[in-house]
Amino acid sequence: MLTDTLLPLLDPRRHLGRLPRPIPWIAAGLIGRIPQARRLVSRIAINKYAYAVAPRPRPLTLAGDYTSWKSLTDRTYSGRHLPPSTAPPEELPAEQDVVALFRRSEEIPSTDTSLMFAFFAQWFTDSFLRTNRLDPRKNDSNHEIDLCQIYGVNEHKTNMLRAGHEGLLDSQFVNGEEFPKFLFAEREPGGELFFDPKFEGLHDREYLLNTILRACPDERKDSVFAVGLEHGNSTIGNTVLNVLFLREHNRIARRLVQQYPKWEDDRLFETTRNIMIVLLLKIVVEEYITHIGPFDFPIELVPFVAEEERWNRTNWCAIEFNLLYRWHSLIPDSTVFDSKRMSTRELVDNNPFVLDRGIDTVIAQFSRQKASKIGLRNTPAFLVDRHPGFPAYPSVEERTVHLMREARLRPYNAYRKEFGLGALASFADLTKDVALQKTMESLYGDIDNVEWYVGIFAEDYPEHRMMGNLMTTMVAHDAFTQALTNPLLARRVYNDRTFTKVGKEIIDQTHCLQQIVARNSQNPREAYASFRVE
Amino acid sequence: MLTDTLLPLLDPRRHLGRLPRPIPWIAAGLIGRIPQARRLVSRIAINKYAYAVAPRPRPLTLAGDYTSWKSLTDRTYSGRHLPPSTAPPEELPAEQDVVALFRRSEEIPSTDTSLMFAFFAQWFTDSFLRTNRLDPRKNDSNHEIDLCQIYGVNEHKTNMLRAGHEGLLDSQFVNGEEFPKFLFAEREPGGELFFDPKFEGLHDREYLLNTILRACPDERKDSVFAVGLEHGNSTIGNTVLNVLFLREHNRIARRLVQQYPKWEDDRLFETTRNIMIVLLLKIVVEEYITHIGPFDFPIELVPFVAEEERWNRTNWCAIEFNLLYRWHSLIPDSTVFDSKRMSTRELVDNNPFVLDRGIDTVIAQFSRQKASKIGLRNTPAFLVDRHPGFPAYPSVEERTVHLMREARLRPYNAYRKEFGLGALASFADLTKDVALQKTMESLYGDIDNVEWYVGIFAEDYPEHRMMGNLMTTMVAHDAFTQALTNPLLARRVYNDRTFTKVGKEIIDQTHCLQQIVARNSQNPREAYASFRVE
Repeated sequence: MLTDTLLPLLDPRRHLGRLPRPIPWIAAGLIGRIPQARRLVSRIAINKYAYAVAPRPRPLTLAGDYTSWKSLTDRTYSGRHLPPSTAPPEELPAEQDVVALFRRSEEIPSTDTSLMFAFFAQWFTDSFLRTNRLDPRKNDSNHEIDLCQIYGVNEHKTNMLRAGHEGLLDSQFVNGEEFPKFLFAEREPGGELFFDPKFEGLHDREYLLNTILRACPDERKDSVFAVGLEHGNSTIGNTVLNVLFLREHNRIARRLVQQYPKWEDDRLFETTRNIMIVLLLKIVVEEYITHIGPFDFPIELVPFVAEEERWNRTNWCAIEFNLLYRWHSLIPDSTVFDSKRMSTRELVDNNPFVLDRGIDTVIAQFSRQKASKIGLRNTPAFLVDRHPGFPAYPSVEERTVHLMREARLRPYNAYRKEFGLGALASFADLTKDVALQKTMESLYGDIDNVEWYVGIFAEDYPEHRMMGNLMTTMVAHDAFTQALTNPLLARRVYNDRTFTKVGKEIIDQTHCLQQIVARNSQNPREAYASFRVE
Repeated sequence: MLTDTLLPLLDPRRHLGRLPRPIPWIAAGLIGRIPQARRLVSRIAINKYAYAVAPRPRPLTLAGDYTSWKSLTDRTYSGRHLPPSTAPPEELPAEQDVVALFRRSEEIPSTDTSLMFAFFAQWFTDSFLRTNRLDPRKNDSNHEIDLCQIYGVNEHKTNMLRAGHEGLLDSQFVNGEEFPKFLFAEREPGGELFFDPKFEGLHDREYLLNTILRACPDERKDSVFAVGLEHGNSTIGNTVLNVLFLREHNRIARRLVQQYPKWEDDRLFETTRNIMIVLLLKIVVEEYITHIGPFDFPIELVPFVAEEERWNRTNWCAIEFNLLYRWHSLIPDSTVFDSKRMSTRELVDNNPFVLDRGIDTVIAQFSRQKASKIGLRNTPAFLVDRHPGFPAYPSVEERTVHLMREARLRPYNAYRKEFGLGALASFADLTKDVALQKTMESLYGDIDNVEWYVGIFAEDYPEHRMMGNLMTTMVAHDAFTQALTNPLLARRVYNDRTFTKVGKEIIDQTHCLQQIVARNSQNPREAYASFRVE
């Protein structure tokens, strides 16, 4: 009840849509500046989404269609929010027709979301949503936000990535700036690529070269960095964020060495990692989720907010969370860099670009460039259509639609009901776009047949939002109930013993990505990072 | 507050110790017969212990002395309730002197605990407290009550133990009664032992033959059963309980086949397993813990009791839980079977005995035999002293004391404070036994130096209890907060879809071991099983 009364106050544009924008902004800003009020409203907002459905454990996973000890305990399988669909698959539209719904005709820009936001979203979610490439029912992650992007997925790999002294991650300096080490050993120009012996076993070499880097021009492969995840060099976004977080790790480790000169490498490293994971969580809640949120309110990472809550249960990423996060439509066809137009295809497999321009410039310029708008008919061609050089590989969107089908998800309206939003009665409720209504009707016949993955991207939403109601609710539910349950945030753990006093101060003072960029920059005053394009 | 008012009412003997026993029994019995009252009091009792200390996650494990991502997430290491001791180890008494404290001088019987209780305790705890034999900082279990005693510790092993049809576990009939299959293939008398090819890889053959079965007479080895755990044939207790639960599994599976003739093997098996795990949980809470409990009250497995509670957090067994459960003093020197005296050493490695007498007889006779009393100076010699045939192997109690030392636990009084009981001021507070006070004082000098593992066994307790205050509190805390969090008990899972209607009825009707024995017996009226000797 309190939620229903308070939240609309924070989203006045939804109700007073005709008022000029600054007025409600100021109101939310004022409440947000009173610490007690900010904390209270943050708690209410978090719980609104966290309690949108019954808490975990959920009875089913992709391991099978009935409840078993495996479905209740084997977290190598993706969870699922709802039981599988009982509708006959032959009555669904052809996969290619569904993929076609995503193909961009005319690019639609976002209202105020930056390309940096899209970079962050990809980099962030790659750490816990990692579909197993041999068995897509499985998720290779540990379901925790653990910064495996820079630390690797297990202790053995973490050790490869460490310097071995003073708690540092291994690094090199290029033009006076710090970067991860290169993954491949030096070679004759055009020669075969082998891992630097130090990184032997960090990733599967065959898979990396033949699949992930298949379209990467050969001369760019020498600058692939040794980082935690196989996809860590796939886009400029992944690369700049890996470099940035490596620098912040080493910056903090060097401060801890000064404070605790007698500590061994392991303790310095582990304590720095504790701090780093919480820094990431702060940015995720206070900047990233705040930007996604349907109201302009500075949500706070309220200390111990999960402590008393019934939704504080063992994390287990659902297949729906994995799928709904595929915001390919955020990617514009082109962007502007150094006043020149650049195809966004150039953002892929391009570490030389980052080494050449430096991460500060890349982050600053892409923080001022708009992403495009999340929704149907707005995914760039290079993610919908197959690469002309590799026609046997399904495109990104083809793989996604196929996975959605394999998971046999219940329809869009079933999820609306499950998440307390009520079923829609007609295609006109879903979208005001008459042409799209007709296409959808010709594909599905009835609004109750619309597939969940299509519906969440078809749903209209007002200018000031980033996505429709169901997607907002589901992403917020899964994010809050799995980020805020991080063991580092628990009452017995979140303290100076875990972080040191210095570390706790760094945590307390950090609220946005810009701060991390600035303190690792040679020109802190010019550093700029933002998820919002003003 | 409610707890403090209500619980003493249920333990009237503590306050009205001089009244004859039946009177308070009747009072507790009456409250226990009013369903609403029983449920309320059970909930209060469970929460009293569950909230005795702050909930998980705990910051440390045996992985290291400071908080790290590993200590927060790597559950292969045993957890720990308190940080390591800072006392210099050289000031502690010699390990042999501590072991000597446990050696029985004159056998002290328990008040009313049966030997069947001791069997059950060993069999039950072997499933989640399994110290890794190569790295004692680790626990090989998944921290869940999963009936791995009969199902094995992973899916691969489970499949070996299954019949492959109708949801059954593999079994054989001997003299018309059902038993697990034998682990070893038939051999020439005295010949070398090899696993039946079906069970290849179920256990480590070298370890089983050279370590676990090292003292087992050769002719008894042919009747080792193929069961889930390596120690599953080590005592008559383990064997009879494995046989009993296998029979109950197959009995239920056969009922489900009748009800759901179209179901495949997997679904029948998994559904039966779901039911079986909850049957075990019911017996554990309603019979076993009720018997341990400090008040004579029929605690109920209240549906969804953990649902709203802050202690409902991911399970993680602590090293203290592992150690405090070593109730070796429950074992008398001898027992009576078929009116003849029998050394309890004969309870070890003796499947032929079970095959010969049948499990009904064994369970019934050992349910009428008293265990001995938990405490110092009451462990039988064969668990304190080394086996004369294998002098290089430390005894059971030697290994325990050594593990306690390796874990560097804080003293007894530190744990009393942590669990809200307050420190004791003197050795006289610990025990009225003046000789023991003197021995303890000569070993430790000060009550504050007494080691935790020694203190919990030294503590006096009244006749109607089974153990001292600190051990009761710690075992109840760890048991309730890790048994009642079982995913099968969660609101979204505990229903007819998970168990079937038939299965749910079996669950609802089962409250004690005797019922399971009776319904699997050829003479149900004569079946008898009890944790209490009247």
